[in-house]
Amino acid sequence: MSPGMSDPVLSHLLANRETFLDRLKTLVAAPSVSADPAYKDGMAETRAILSGWLREAGFDTVREIEAGGHAAVYADWLHAPGAPTFIVYGHYDVQPPDPLEKWISPPFKATIRENRIYGRGISDDKGPSLIALQTLFGFLKVEGRLPVNMRVLLEGEEEVGSATLPALCRTHADLLKADAVISADGARWRADLPCVNVGSRGNSGYDIALRTAAKDLHSGRFGGAVRNALHEMAVLVSSLHTPDGRIAVDGFYDGVAPISGEERAHLEAIPFDEAAFLEAIGGSAHGEPGFGTLDRLWNRPTLEINGMWGGYLGEGAKTVTPAEAFAKITTRLVTGQDPARVGQAVEAHLRKACPEGVTLEIVENHAGTSAYTVPPDHPLLKATEVAMGLAAGKAPLRIRIGGTLPLTDILKRELGIDTVMLSYSTTDEDFHAPNEFFRLSAIDEGQTAWVALLRDLGTQSPELYAPYRP
Amino acid sequence: MSPGMSDPVLSHLLANRETFLDRLKTLVAAPSVSADPAYKDGMAETRAILSGWLREAGFDTVREIEAGGHAAVYADWLHAPGAPTFIVYGHYDVQPPDPLEKWISPPFKATIRENRIYGRGISDDKGPSLIALQTLFGFLKVEGRLPVNMRVLLEGEEEVGSATLPALCRTHADLLKADAVISADGARWRADLPCVNVGSRGNSGYDIALRTAAKDLHSGRFGGAVRNALHEMAVLVSSLHTPDGRIAVDGFYDGVAPISGEERAHLEAIPFDEAAFLEAIGGSAHGEPGFGTLDRLWNRPTLEINGMWGGYLGEGAKTVTPAEAFAKITTRLVTGQDPARVGQAVEAHLRKACPEGVTLEIVENHAGTSAYTVPPDHPLLKATEVAMGLAAGKAPLRIRIGGTLPLTDILKRELGIDTVMLSYSTTDEDFHAPNEFFRLSAIDEGQTAWVALLRDLGTQSPELYAPYRP
Repeated sequence: MSPGMSDPVLSHLLANRETFLDRLKTLVAAPSVSADPAYKDGMAETRAILSGWLREAGFDTVREIEAGGHAAVYADWLHAPGAPTFIVYGHYDVQPPDPLEKWISPPFKATIRENRIYGRGISDDKGPSLIALQTLFGFLKVEGRLPVNMRVLLEGEEEVGSATLPALCRTHADLLKADAVISADGARWRADLPCVNVGSRGNSGYDIALRTAAKDLHSGRFGGAVRNALHEMAVLVSSLHTPDGRIAVDGFYDGVAPISGEERAHLEAIPFDEAAFLEAIGGSAHGEPGFGTLDRLWNRPTLEINGMWGGYLGEGAKTVTPAEAFAKITTRLVTGQDPARVGQAVEAHLRKACPEGVTLEIVENHAGTSAYTVPPDHPLLKATEVAMGLAAGKAPLRIRIGGTLPLTDILKRELGIDTVMLSYSTTDEDFHAPNEFFRLSAIDEGQTAWVALLRDLGTQSPELYAPYRP
Repeated sequence: MSPGMSDPVLSHLLANRETFLDRLKTLVAAPSVSADPAYKDGMAETRAILSGWLREAGFDTVREIEAGGHAAVYADWLHAPGAPTFIVYGHYDVQPPDPLEKWISPPFKATIRENRIYGRGISDDKGPSLIALQTLFGFLKVEGRLPVNMRVLLEGEEEVGSATLPALCRTHADLLKADAVISADGARWRADLPCVNVGSRGNSGYDIALRTAAKDLHSGRFGGAVRNALHEMAVLVSSLHTPDGRIAVDGFYDGVAPISGEERAHLEAIPFDEAAFLEAIGGSAHGEPGFGTLDRLWNRPTLEINGMWGGYLGEGAKTVTPAEAFAKITTRLVTGQDPARVGQAVEAHLRKACPEGVTLEIVENHAGTSAYTVPPDHPLLKATEVAMGLAAGKAPLRIRIGGTLPLTDILKRELGIDTVMLSYSTTDEDFHAPNEFFRLSAIDEGQTAWVALLRDLGTQSPELYAPYRP
């Protein structure tokens, strides 16, 4: 493992693993669910913890910045004249813990079992963010300085589509001047294969409601003679895909870039065991005809129902003809798709498919995000590949991720700079599901890579970034 | 209004309207939801209240009888030698109160507004049952005796398909020997038109669960490449009907009796304002092609989704690819359909429609019930028509109801006797929905009819019933 145990900062970090685990447990115990207003206090508590650590470590400006949504935690240390300036990005908000009854240990009590540590948000993104922070703290503690200028930005709205991040970038543009962004969010594809993510899918989301009558009706008194909102919702949702798995929304695929020969060659070079991938989740392959699983995950867009409900959901039978039905829809978008135009296409489809006598309401449930690709020759990308390779003992592959990192798209648009992901979460760690976990082995490997990266970046001239900033 | 204010029992009842209302409020305040185990105490409390009143009124045997499910309240008074013996049936259980937020006044606090009294179960079936009970109590109070022999049976499982009523009939056959049953459940079609129900639809019900993976998945990491349980549920539910409203389950309509010319003539004689019917519920007509609304409600079977859910149902967005989806299905069955065979047809359809990679679980959620028709020349039916006509001032029409009264089928099968409905609830009173109500005007009209009926039955010989009992 290079840069080697002889690096004083890395030695310090590896010797203080218990401190890392204590801090991770403290972070998980603060329930920072951004989607649900009931967790407002947990959000504030998490910000206070992070701000405290940043101040204690010696960051100068440490403050909360916001633009009408959940505040972000901001901090800077800018005492490396002649070195480039980076934003270290992470997010402190987490997904809702539902369904609670499926958790083996409580979601907000970090619990170690067999080389893993379990808890809501521990992999997405509290563990990976803490790796970045502890590395910065290690440099300040051991050497009294950082190799580069650093601005820390810990967002509070990543799990709800980063709705106010664009406004926040505009309002606080002076605090966010930098050459590039290093993201502690983004996730490794696999733990056993070093990979650097060079792109992510975009997304958009819609809540829909159907109404077929002024009130729920007795199925014996009215059933069979009037519309049933759940039947209508089932038909409407079914209409969104063809039976063989293609999205049936007119115009949805407009602008989608074909997969280039180079990308295809890249994809084929990646060792991917589809059977093992499916077995791990107990699922079966299904998706857009004519494409393989990796294409479906990385290069093709999706439209998914994330939630659907109506009528009686309790125990036993209730003979009701429901008057209302609800669904939550999100998409994943690829290069060439504009979230606003996709939203128009989805709305047009739903309105056309909704029969007379049924009232349809559509609400966009979060701001849309475009897909993002990092420039292939970007100096931060190259430095990240080297650092990651040093930590893993072999050179990383370039891959993409199927998920969405709104910030990559937003920061490019708002600040004009690129983002490279150096995250030590792994895609199988049950983000957004019960029993989310983080590999304990990622802590040392991640800190090794971050130390190596910061030392390398400290040797770079800011001029290297001139072609990649506004 | 005959039998006239000169009837001493009726005079007593009409003079004690406040007692009736007090008792109705007491009954509503006891939350007897049979579908949900959380209401176990409310069930017991309701039984205790009813038993207390029956004992106080002078019934001899007053006890709870059961066969493994919710107990029924039983009481008898058998001191009318030479007169026939009847079971007076009602049910003390009610539907769940969900959705709670739609109630204007609390569901378990009976509240009077504009000639109506609101509360869960007030129309189905606490109000109508209390009319029957108070009439019996009135006879005992004023005259010290009843005109006929009476057995009271107040069931606790009507709203969950009367699952253990057949076993209860067998276990307590000695307590349930009678010539016929007068049901206080069954509902008037309209408040302004006297009608006697001569039949009801049967039903059956199934809870289904779909599983597409071992756990919920992140839609960015897996979405688009694996099956989504909500998509599968939407497709499965859609497959149950043709786009134009016919049930698409192979064999579902097997055995359904065609509508006879006599029935057709009867239907056409009934004044029915479809536009007003639809306007009252804010709904639109939709159902089996080739049939009108009354046919769809009374003479044709239905298959309905009463509840459907899966994935994230909370506030905001959660980008999950759900691994599980659930639905609750019930049918309404007509003469000629066997609930067991319908269940087999539904199961066969679901299994055939369920694609590879999707696990389907089907659980029958309550015992099936066949449709029921009372013999057209039955002496209790004729006496009921006379009494109802006296109370309303005009002869009643014979109609059917679209709902299910499991007891009519069960009592015919288990005890060999017929049931005639004399209920003063009305079909527009939002049973099974928020803001269930009971018309205050039904109290006097109902007690008038019940007094008239009991006096008339007191003049009948038990021999009249010989052709209609085992």
